[in-house]
Amino acid sequence: MSTDINIQSLFDQVTSGDRVALGRAITLVESKNLIHRSQANQLLDLCLLTNSDTFRFAISGAPGAGKSTLIEVLGKCISDAGETLAVLTVDPTSSITGGSILGDKTRMQSLSVNPNVFIRPTAAGNALGGVSDATREAIVLCEAAGYQNICIETVGVGQSEVTARSMTDFLLLLVMPGGGDDLQGIKRGIVELADAIAINKTDGTQRESAITTRQNYMQAAHFFAHKEHGIKTQVVNCSALENSGIDALWALMQEFHSEISKSGFITKQRRKQDVTWLEGKVDLLVRDIIYSNSQLNNLYISLKTEVQEHKLSVSSAYDHLKKEIHSKFEIL
Amino acid sequence: MSTDINIQSLFDQVTSGDRVALGRAITLVESKNLIHRSQANQLLDLCLLTNSDTFRFAISGAPGAGKSTLIEVLGKCISDAGETLAVLTVDPTSSITGGSILGDKTRMQSLSVNPNVFIRPTAAGNALGGVSDATREAIVLCEAAGYQNICIETVGVGQSEVTARSMTDFLLLLVMPGGGDDLQGIKRGIVELADAIAINKTDGTQRESAITTRQNYMQAAHFFAHKEHGIKTQVVNCSALENSGIDALWALMQEFHSEISKSGFITKQRRKQDVTWLEGKVDLLVRDIIYSNSQLNNLYISLKTEVQEHKLSVSSAYDHLKKEIHSKFEIL
Repeated sequence: MSTDINIQSLFDQVTSGDRVALGRAITLVESKNLIHRSQANQLLDLCLLTNSDTFRFAISGAPGAGKSTLIEVLGKCISDAGETLAVLTVDPTSSITGGSILGDKTRMQSLSVNPNVFIRPTAAGNALGGVSDATREAIVLCEAAGYQNICIETVGVGQSEVTARSMTDFLLLLVMPGGGDDLQGIKRGIVELADAIAINKTDGTQRESAITTRQNYMQAAHFFAHKEHGIKTQVVNCSALENSGIDALWALMQEFHSEISKSGFITKQRRKQDVTWLEGKVDLLVRDIIYSNSQLNNLYISLKTEVQEHKLSVSSAYDHLKKEIHSKFEIL
Repeated sequence: MSTDINIQSLFDQVTSGDRVALGRAITLVESKNLIHRSQANQLLDLCLLTNSDTFRFAISGAPGAGKSTLIEVLGKCISDAGETLAVLTVDPTSSITGGSILGDKTRMQSLSVNPNVFIRPTAAGNALGGVSDATREAIVLCEAAGYQNICIETVGVGQSEVTARSMTDFLLLLVMPGGGDDLQGIKRGIVELADAIAINKTDGTQRESAITTRQNYMQAAHFFAHKEHGIKTQVVNCSALENSGIDALWALMQEFHSEISKSGFITKQRRKQDVTWLEGKVDLLVRDIIYSNSQLNNLYISLKTEVQEHKLSVSSAYDHLKKEIHSKFEIL
């Protein structure tokens, strides 16, 4: 991407619904180039003024749970109701083939030609589960482009759901019939994090098993801590393949959205998510300082080695590094 | 405490088993005074050379679960077996009365006069659940003083168990009969964190309920993720009041200690805990830099307010702060 961009004009194109411009804007926020980063910030600050009466939801689940099939039928359901949807997907094959765009177009064939739906695969294979800072920013851009619903797809690897939940209003966990969380590679804490759980593949020979699985999760839900939004975790059966239970799933998601909008929780939570995100980034800034100074970087590496080898106490290592940083820094 | 201390001589006194010296050494690591901090580091570096073939365990549970009564009978059991024990306790009343030492002496009357047992209440009421960096350092000092078993008591408030687990080899969660985790104020993820769960108060009219509670936790344990040490979470009944099930509890804890010692996991985990601790401290160092510079501090506060009020994007706020920090810092 060229560094010669008129940001106001790009913003105008995005807000007018130009899909190509939206794609370019997302590429801009994904860039690590410093000039691009500065332009991306200008663009994001302009987006703060746009409407954000949207619904941001994340869908997670182990590979094979049927996430892309579910998104395809859920997307059709949303589009049939006259609403728009932007899907920020993760292509599990992208790190292998390098061709995430083609991969996703193949995965969600009918959605990809739906005029109410915008699909953007996450090319970045560096973030676990495919969710990164750029994803947060892509959400804001899609909202500026007028999309009413934003769906983040993430592969369940533990931390990725926590990150995905921290940038959305609602987390749906998709599980398969049978097996404990263990067998599905889902960490127990993640189940607790979900605002709703859908047992997919409630069809054919797996129907009975799926109904039992739902009962198990409902029982487990009794143990969950109360969520700040005060809404109980729903557990439902569905079949993305047979398109059954999808309308009911979307209805409960809309009901959730409506409740947190009425209570004002949605805005409160989004502001809190932003501040927490900033604080997390700032906490990591010291690594940036250390990495950008070879002397400090070498010192940090050797101190970590000494701690690892039990030759130096953590407190001594910390104080040594702290003194070096302070000595390089004009403390008033 | 005076700043005029001979650290080598204090170390010699501590390692010779002088309890008064051990108490002074712990006070030293608790001090925020910069000269004390530097002396504490010298002392801790000397302790690295001492034997660490010890068992570090944490005991957590909601207020009223019977933690201090359990520690009293468990301590007697350990002492009767000819082993020594150091207990780093939290006095839940300390923030109110300010008199944590008296409080704890009263709570564990028979242990406090046992020559095989050293009890040290945590005076610091600033850390949630009473577990702090000073606790980690106190563990090392108690080990240098020759204590074979180190017990950290923490009040269950969520983060405190995570911190307590991060400085020990084993976490015991103490729960009461009946009620879900919710009713006991225990977060679900904490149950998963435990290496063993003991249902206390398995006595009198609560016996039946305690047996059912054990079954419920055993069932829930099926859902837990596998731990790195590969040992299954045990769930047992006990009564600290009637001193029943305590021998069996100590036996399973010793079995756990023996297994992780044989596999080498204990040392591997302790080294990893140290490096993670250092990294966590270093990540927070940027806050130290910001707070020590009034201009940066004011900037950070105003940026957070702008983000909170949705006037500035997180990325712009971050980049602004980052630039200011870099401009004050001699980046090579």
